[in-house]
Amino acid sequence: MTAEMMLRGAGTRDSRAWISELENLGVERGESVGVAQASYSGATLKDNLHPALELIADMLLRPHLPVDQLEAGRSVCLQDLRGIDDEPSHKLMIELRRRHYPDPWGRSSHGDEEGLSEITIDEVQQFHATHYRPDETILGVAGNFDWNELRDRVEELFGSWKSHPVAEPHGVNGRPPGNYIPFESGQSHVGVAYPTIPYKHPDYFQAWAAVGVLSSGSSSRLFTEVREKRGLCYTVHASLHTQRDRASVLCYAGTTAERAQETLDVTVAELLRIADGIEQSELDRLKARIKSSLIMQQESTSARSGSIARDWYHLGRVRTLDEVGRMVDELSAQSINSFLDENPPRDLLVVTLGPEPLEVPVGIL
Amino acid sequence: MTAEMMLRGAGTRDSRAWISELENLGVERGESVGVAQASYSGATLKDNLHPALELIADMLLRPHLPVDQLEAGRSVCLQDLRGIDDEPSHKLMIELRRRHYPDPWGRSSHGDEEGLSEITIDEVQQFHATHYRPDETILGVAGNFDWNELRDRVEELFGSWKSHPVAEPHGVNGRPPGNYIPFESGQSHVGVAYPTIPYKHPDYFQAWAAVGVLSSGSSSRLFTEVREKRGLCYTVHASLHTQRDRASVLCYAGTTAERAQETLDVTVAELLRIADGIEQSELDRLKARIKSSLIMQQESTSARSGSIARDWYHLGRVRTLDEVGRMVDELSAQSINSFLDENPPRDLLVVTLGPEPLEVPVGIL
Repeated sequence: MTAEMMLRGAGTRDSRAWISELENLGVERGESVGVAQASYSGATLKDNLHPALELIADMLLRPHLPVDQLEAGRSVCLQDLRGIDDEPSHKLMIELRRRHYPDPWGRSSHGDEEGLSEITIDEVQQFHATHYRPDETILGVAGNFDWNELRDRVEELFGSWKSHPVAEPHGVNGRPPGNYIPFESGQSHVGVAYPTIPYKHPDYFQAWAAVGVLSSGSSSRLFTEVREKRGLCYTVHASLHTQRDRASVLCYAGTTAERAQETLDVTVAELLRIADGIEQSELDRLKARIKSSLIMQQESTSARSGSIARDWYHLGRVRTLDEVGRMVDELSAQSINSFLDENPPRDLLVVTLGPEPLEVPVGIL
Repeated sequence: MTAEMMLRGAGTRDSRAWISELENLGVERGESVGVAQASYSGATLKDNLHPALELIADMLLRPHLPVDQLEAGRSVCLQDLRGIDDEPSHKLMIELRRRHYPDPWGRSSHGDEEGLSEITIDEVQQFHATHYRPDETILGVAGNFDWNELRDRVEELFGSWKSHPVAEPHGVNGRPPGNYIPFESGQSHVGVAYPTIPYKHPDYFQAWAAVGVLSSGSSSRLFTEVREKRGLCYTVHASLHTQRDRASVLCYAGTTAERAQETLDVTVAELLRIADGIEQSELDRLKARIKSSLIMQQESTSARSGSIARDWYHLGRVRTLDEVGRMVDELSAQSINSFLDENPPRDLLVVTLGPEPLEVPVGIL
């Protein structure tokens, strides 16, 4: 709600004027709210960087959070939440995260009906005052700009921003019970989660490459076994989902109700089989793919600015693309297999959504 | 089905070998099938361009289309089709296009249950032989390459490809009746379509800019009236959907069932109000956004190669980004309003999907 309300006027400008001014500068804007941060991004021509930063500073430091727009803002957030009922794959992955992570780290950023219905403008203002704070804000900028000019401007715009002590979030609710969500449909949706190491861990790239062998590209194991050979489903993927202090592999497959049990069994078997290690040829293909994608990232200032902020959040410093390239070069089947020996997939959590519950495969009981 | 089967082995390589080889070259691959074309794209490092083209040539000219993988391919396509039942917004827009365009131009590229169930390997092979043809194939390449080398290599790889005469597709089925699709949910999905001019039309940019005023950015009319002021829905957008010889504006809004009628009424009122013309300030904001996005497109070789192929398909030539920039500069509120005077939104088709039918707003009866 706070992120929604922050776009509704700031500084000397009301809601319309603030957004119009940003769009007059040609800013392509995006916001997202995650479990531990809100993120705001924008891309524009280099001459517009400083004026755009002024508007962003107004939004972060001096949002109006106007009471006369609270109901419209609440309604948009409720519409967003209710829309998930029509997106079963999305709904499943939300429920999987809620059951996998300790609360509050598995909460959905969409909130819940009760919380959204009751929220007051005072609570929104209090949330902003408490949680939007300079010591936890990271600004990543990529593109054609002068470093000294930018640093001075950021000092002028953000230097007066004061912080307050804030308590760390702690778990307040238990995880929801059960691992089956009834849903009337001819489709079933299968989610699997297991813990792994976060981005800041020195072995992160080993963990990440193992997931890549499972799910990156059409020659990956999940794609080959579940989709190509057996035609069990159109979409199957696993990815490494990292927070600062915890991480997991999240896997999704969507299929027809008749083929759901087989899809779950084959998917879980592939996830567990990674513990036996990967082959050199799998790593070679993965490295070729990563190398291309690093070069393509260099093309994109938007992607680069996001990586800068992400690195600072997780590591407290920025990795250059060269450094990332070297770390990828140093990956070997041996180093990945040692990692997998010590960290085989374990504590797999299966959550399914569909017309009938499925049997949890014996391999993970 | 043909596009799915074409990825299952080509030239001297079987399915596994062909895909592995492509991924060894670090190619980020994508395929999509539209109403009039199939499209294959790839991005990789410059040194891998020629070897990647060899693999693509094998796929286009010498696919195995193996009978022993037909059932797996069919199953994947059926899973894809059935998955749409769980994506009501997607389902609605498919039904909107089917009712709006003359058949076959409104068909869904996902096919239908009956067609997919009955297709034989002979039909797949026949489809490939008839419809994959050099005179209707466009190759767009962007990035760092030597023109003469590329031209010679393309001649070697594709020069022997023979074409056959082919009949133009013609309408065979009527459009489906009715404009309401029952769907058990707390949500309703609203779609509106009306005809406009295609990309190749000299006034295309006027039509495109008018849709931009409706739906590009957070200060656009639909976003402001439907989402921000009234909080009617989380997502609302209109876009210009162009084929070679016909085009339409397609508009979508998703909301809760209780607010669906109001959402439809407000959305249609905004679409119709564009006939009264746009304001200079709206155009100024739109131009600023377009200018940014053109610069960002220049950053992306993938986006550029797609534009090259698209221009050639629609215009028979390639527009430079400078040319597009000039055409955008030349847009004026006056030129757009003259266009809208002569081409106001008309023949609006409303299709809705949800628990209850809605009343078609009187303005369009």
